[in-house]
Amino acid sequence: MTANALHKPAVKADPAHAEMANAIRFLAIDAVEKAKSGHPGMPMGMADVATVLFSRFMKFDPADPAWPDRDRFVLSAGHGSMLLYALLHLTGYEAVTIDEIKRFRQWGAKTPGHPEYGHTPGVETTTGPLGQGIATAVGMALAERLMNARYGDDLVDHYTYVIAGDGCLMEGISHEAISLAGHLKLNRLIVLFDDNGISIDGSTGLACSDDQLGRFAASGWATCRIDGHDPEAIEKAIAAARQSDRPTMIACRTTIGFGSPGRQGSEKAHGAPLGPEEVEKTRAALHWPHRPFEVPADVLVSWREIGARGRSVRQAWKERARKQCSSDRSPCHDALNRKLPATYTERMAQFIAQLTAERPKIATRQASQHVIDVIATVLPNLLGGSADLTHSNLTKAKTQKSVTPATMDGNYIHYGVREHAMAAAINGIALHGGFIPYGGTFLAFADYNRPAIRLAALMGIRVIHVMTHDSIGLGEDGPTHQPVEHVASLRVIPNLLVFRPADAVETAEAWDCALRAETSPSVLCLSRQALPAFRTEASDHNQVALGAYVVVEPEGGRDVTLIATGSEVAIALEAAKLLAAENVQAAVVSAPCFELFRKQSAEYRAEVLGPAPRIGVEAAIEGDWARWLGDAGEFVGMHGFGASAPAEVLYREFGITPAAVADAAMRNIIRARAS
Amino acid sequence: MTANALHKPAVKADPAHAEMANAIRFLAIDAVEKAKSGHPGMPMGMADVATVLFSRFMKFDPADPAWPDRDRFVLSAGHGSMLLYALLHLTGYEAVTIDEIKRFRQWGAKTPGHPEYGHTPGVETTTGPLGQGIATAVGMALAERLMNARYGDDLVDHYTYVIAGDGCLMEGISHEAISLAGHLKLNRLIVLFDDNGISIDGSTGLACSDDQLGRFAASGWATCRIDGHDPEAIEKAIAAARQSDRPTMIACRTTIGFGSPGRQGSEKAHGAPLGPEEVEKTRAALHWPHRPFEVPADVLVSWREIGARGRSVRQAWKERARKQCSSDRSPCHDALNRKLPATYTERMAQFIAQLTAERPKIATRQASQHVIDVIATVLPNLLGGSADLTHSNLTKAKTQKSVTPATMDGNYIHYGVREHAMAAAINGIALHGGFIPYGGTFLAFADYNRPAIRLAALMGIRVIHVMTHDSIGLGEDGPTHQPVEHVASLRVIPNLLVFRPADAVETAEAWDCALRAETSPSVLCLSRQALPAFRTEASDHNQVALGAYVVVEPEGGRDVTLIATGSEVAIALEAAKLLAAENVQAAVVSAPCFELFRKQSAEYRAEVLGPAPRIGVEAAIEGDWARWLGDAGEFVGMHGFGASAPAEVLYREFGITPAAVADAAMRNIIRARAS
Repeated sequence: MTANALHKPAVKADPAHAEMANAIRFLAIDAVEKAKSGHPGMPMGMADVATVLFSRFMKFDPADPAWPDRDRFVLSAGHGSMLLYALLHLTGYEAVTIDEIKRFRQWGAKTPGHPEYGHTPGVETTTGPLGQGIATAVGMALAERLMNARYGDDLVDHYTYVIAGDGCLMEGISHEAISLAGHLKLNRLIVLFDDNGISIDGSTGLACSDDQLGRFAASGWATCRIDGHDPEAIEKAIAAARQSDRPTMIACRTTIGFGSPGRQGSEKAHGAPLGPEEVEKTRAALHWPHRPFEVPADVLVSWREIGARGRSVRQAWKERARKQCSSDRSPCHDALNRKLPATYTERMAQFIAQLTAERPKIATRQASQHVIDVIATVLPNLLGGSADLTHSNLTKAKTQKSVTPATMDGNYIHYGVREHAMAAAINGIALHGGFIPYGGTFLAFADYNRPAIRLAALMGIRVIHVMTHDSIGLGEDGPTHQPVEHVASLRVIPNLLVFRPADAVETAEAWDCALRAETSPSVLCLSRQALPAFRTEASDHNQVALGAYVVVEPEGGRDVTLIATGSEVAIALEAAKLLAAENVQAAVVSAPCFELFRKQSAEYRAEVLGPAPRIGVEAAIEGDWARWLGDAGEFVGMHGFGASAPAEVLYREFGITPAAVADAAMRNIIRARAS
Repeated sequence: MTANALHKPAVKADPAHAEMANAIRFLAIDAVEKAKSGHPGMPMGMADVATVLFSRFMKFDPADPAWPDRDRFVLSAGHGSMLLYALLHLTGYEAVTIDEIKRFRQWGAKTPGHPEYGHTPGVETTTGPLGQGIATAVGMALAERLMNARYGDDLVDHYTYVIAGDGCLMEGISHEAISLAGHLKLNRLIVLFDDNGISIDGSTGLACSDDQLGRFAASGWATCRIDGHDPEAIEKAIAAARQSDRPTMIACRTTIGFGSPGRQGSEKAHGAPLGPEEVEKTRAALHWPHRPFEVPADVLVSWREIGARGRSVRQAWKERARKQCSSDRSPCHDALNRKLPATYTERMAQFIAQLTAERPKIATRQASQHVIDVIATVLPNLLGGSADLTHSNLTKAKTQKSVTPATMDGNYIHYGVREHAMAAAINGIALHGGFIPYGGTFLAFADYNRPAIRLAALMGIRVIHVMTHDSIGLGEDGPTHQPVEHVASLRVIPNLLVFRPADAVETAEAWDCALRAETSPSVLCLSRQALPAFRTEASDHNQVALGAYVVVEPEGGRDVTLIATGSEVAIALEAAKLLAAENVQAAVVSAPCFELFRKQSAEYRAEVLGPAPRIGVEAAIEGDWARWLGDAGEFVGMHGFGASAPAEVLYREFGITPAAVADAAMRNIIRARAS
């Protein structure tokens, strides 16, 4: 008996279906009404589909929302959050009480406006920004197949279901996600398209004429169209989808605001309370005579029975897992527990010692390649990839094997030219569990996947972005590819660790920080061009983890402090030599991660920054450097877009040179003495 | 005879075709070789297609690259820039000399790594970031139809041709663009897909299995597949596309690096010089015995004849245009000249005076709605739109009419849930000329269209983004929709004007600045919630244009300066009252546009900021505020993501209140006195 056998669909529709679906509808209606804001139309429209899905198919146990082999349910149309909260409450997730439903959209409630991962048990991913859910679900469905290839059906055998609306499918990220899922034949992915023909401006016909089925079919999906209010049709379609060898899109024709005589089928049902009068009319129309927030006992019992059904399945799974994953050192154990193995710590320390001794003059992207080669051998759950820039990002370890539909035991994903879906997919992979995913692209294209990076930061998940070609130092490709403002723009995203390492050792330390940051995503900004090694003395701790630290401390006190990141640390070091020749004592600080530096004690920060005038050096827009430089400081960097020319010409023409830094230092020392 | 008649395709292929195509190939090969960097594979592969397009169809005149009725050619696969530079040189664009070709990718050359609009005559739009070109072209093709509906075939009758590669079509933005173009039936748009089956990682089959023809067909496009090295097939396909009532995608099967015995058909031809040995082999294989950069005289003459062909067509057009657009006041004249009419200046001044007197307490998005209602009546070339948030962004004027395939005389675009394509399309509309385009979405979704906003800034074009729901002040929708870091992240994009107006008058002034910024894109960050009017005294100049200005100057000198933007100006004003009650003299500064403030004189900036401690107030991440606040300052704002709750609760819980600002002021005054 497989783990899914219990969820074999019933032959006949449950006669209580309508009541159960109405329970969802009225919890949504009542919660939106009480909050005086929210989106009732979608939960009302998709209540039938959700009821069939949860009552006849979903494998889950409200008592253990983190059970690894549960089916995943992703509400890509996140504004319909009350659909999800109603389901969580009705099936018995302890945290989602009726009181929390009543506190919909209130401060501190478990029921915020859009579903938030980590905040509400049972929410698999944060959604709301359209299209993110479906692309994140692709990552989950991919992770499931990858894990299945490693650990077999006994441990990994589940589906990923998505409810997506017109808005999700209009977003560009949906194309990337659909195309990737079709290519990889992710047959455990089932998208339920809420095909209601309405978006905020009105009929979708105002802006869209796509043949959605044709479009999904063109990307290798199975497709069908059903009446989204016919439980038997829904059941049949989902049952068929579960047997498909391809991902499936089921277009569910629904009526937005189903049951509301005055609002159904109109954009007016989408994003505002129905209003007391219309609510009463809807109660009458749907034969739901109950008070607000009241779920009749028999309906609640039916829903709770569904919620209770997964317990035995989960227990059987746990038994199997206990047998197969008992050893602390089994890869399965490490994967399921998301922990770094002890061998990693040893190997990384050894490798950093080696780099310190070898002093390679290489690009930090090359250093990163070496790091990946090393860690791939000790982290079996490392999952690499790049958005079609493998040979530029240098993201593929020698030992990594490409994933294809036929090689799901591989550990390197060719994401294609799909930066946005890649970022969302690695979010999904991290959320699914079992892997530490990273993905590569050029730093300039951080703009393409920014919405997914933001969600990773909001969710607090460990994903790692390897972003190479991190400044004008990439040279001839010119301003479209030179990320002058990207470092600054990433630094303002809360809970995102932005690293700009300056040599091979710092690159390894940055990777180490990123791997250990269990509740933060990281971006590694890496150079195309070679950088000299300066971390040539052994250290007993990870210095990048301090955010910023002193590289050169002049004897006899500082006249000036030069603070730099990445490729500009070498320039600052050269500038310090020029200044020394003029008897000016310059300290040099490397600041690979502003976020981590901010977390250090005020004393440490003051010690590093020092009381002397400060010169910041970064081949980028100033952004928030003023925070570190203070009134007596000056920034040497970019003041606009870059240009197409060899890198050394650009550094010279844009005035980011040792001489320019030394000049700025002299200028500020003199000014400080004069004042 | 229509303006296009001269470009009716010849019945037979030009026998000189191969030589002409090889001229493109070898200019590309030689330039990349000399630069030691660049992308030869695509120009070599698409030389035949480009030769047929330019020699048999394109309407253009190298003597007047800005001729409004020229056909537009967009190289969406911008890395193949040498294809474009070769065409510009061969057809006779004066600026693109053979010496500039030889200076490919060098400092200051007209031939940068990727095509740059405004830098090289004949380049219609900056490309390189994949997918942008095709989406920008949708805007151009839309603008053509809109202009045609207004001014007729005599004045507006041209095509938009795009060369797009696999990468462009994998990017999500391509879906949005294709879907929008298909919906609007933009039949003057013809996409030539460089279907070479190769991307950077290797065979596209590594990452993509899409049926591209099926996908375009699903979005309402005409499609066909041809041999991209067969001139007759290319000609036939383009000729048919020009007759279609829908946009057309022609999949051109090509061989990347065509003619290079050792590289063709391989990703190795994509992004690196062939190397001297392989170049010689290619010369032999293609029977091109000429020296590097040498174009045989007869081949150059053939190309120059093609370049000269458009002159008479353009002259005839100019004659027609002179007759129809001679009056300074004709809308056609204004549209073609992109100027604001005098009536605009009068009406805007009058409207600002009215707002100053009326003192409405309204959301700035509502104020913006009023502005749009007013300016739509005096700017016939204003073109509105929203990414499916019309009723939330309040972007549609009462007098505006929706654009549909049947109503191309309309002036409001329902872009659908396609923020990215909207931003690229308004770039294309602005580049095409004839309109001042604006588009609306939520500020949080600035992350979705950021790559296109960046390109607008890089190109220096006037497009206006109306971004509402600009802070935690949007309330219950929660952190996914609350743009805490977006204002800061937009401020770091060079040449982008980011406005955050604080009341109705400032909103009108910000709109005025944006409309007058002919070489900068603008983002208007607008509140969902109502804000009190404080600009209640008439001003003889646009104060927002100063970037920041003093709203309250206390008599007897300042103890502290409170600097705020947007919705927080009201909080700063309240804080000043609290401080006044304690006998503390607080100045209040409104800082609606940091970029414009930076452009003011040092004296003016010092006067506004003042010598007293400074408190910055913005319901957002600090970003680059330290630049204004200095060592003695403090920032009152957000320190992480928002939350779902009513707006007033959020302001209280996150400590952005008059009392908190007053506390910060007292703290800093005391600290300053102590030091």
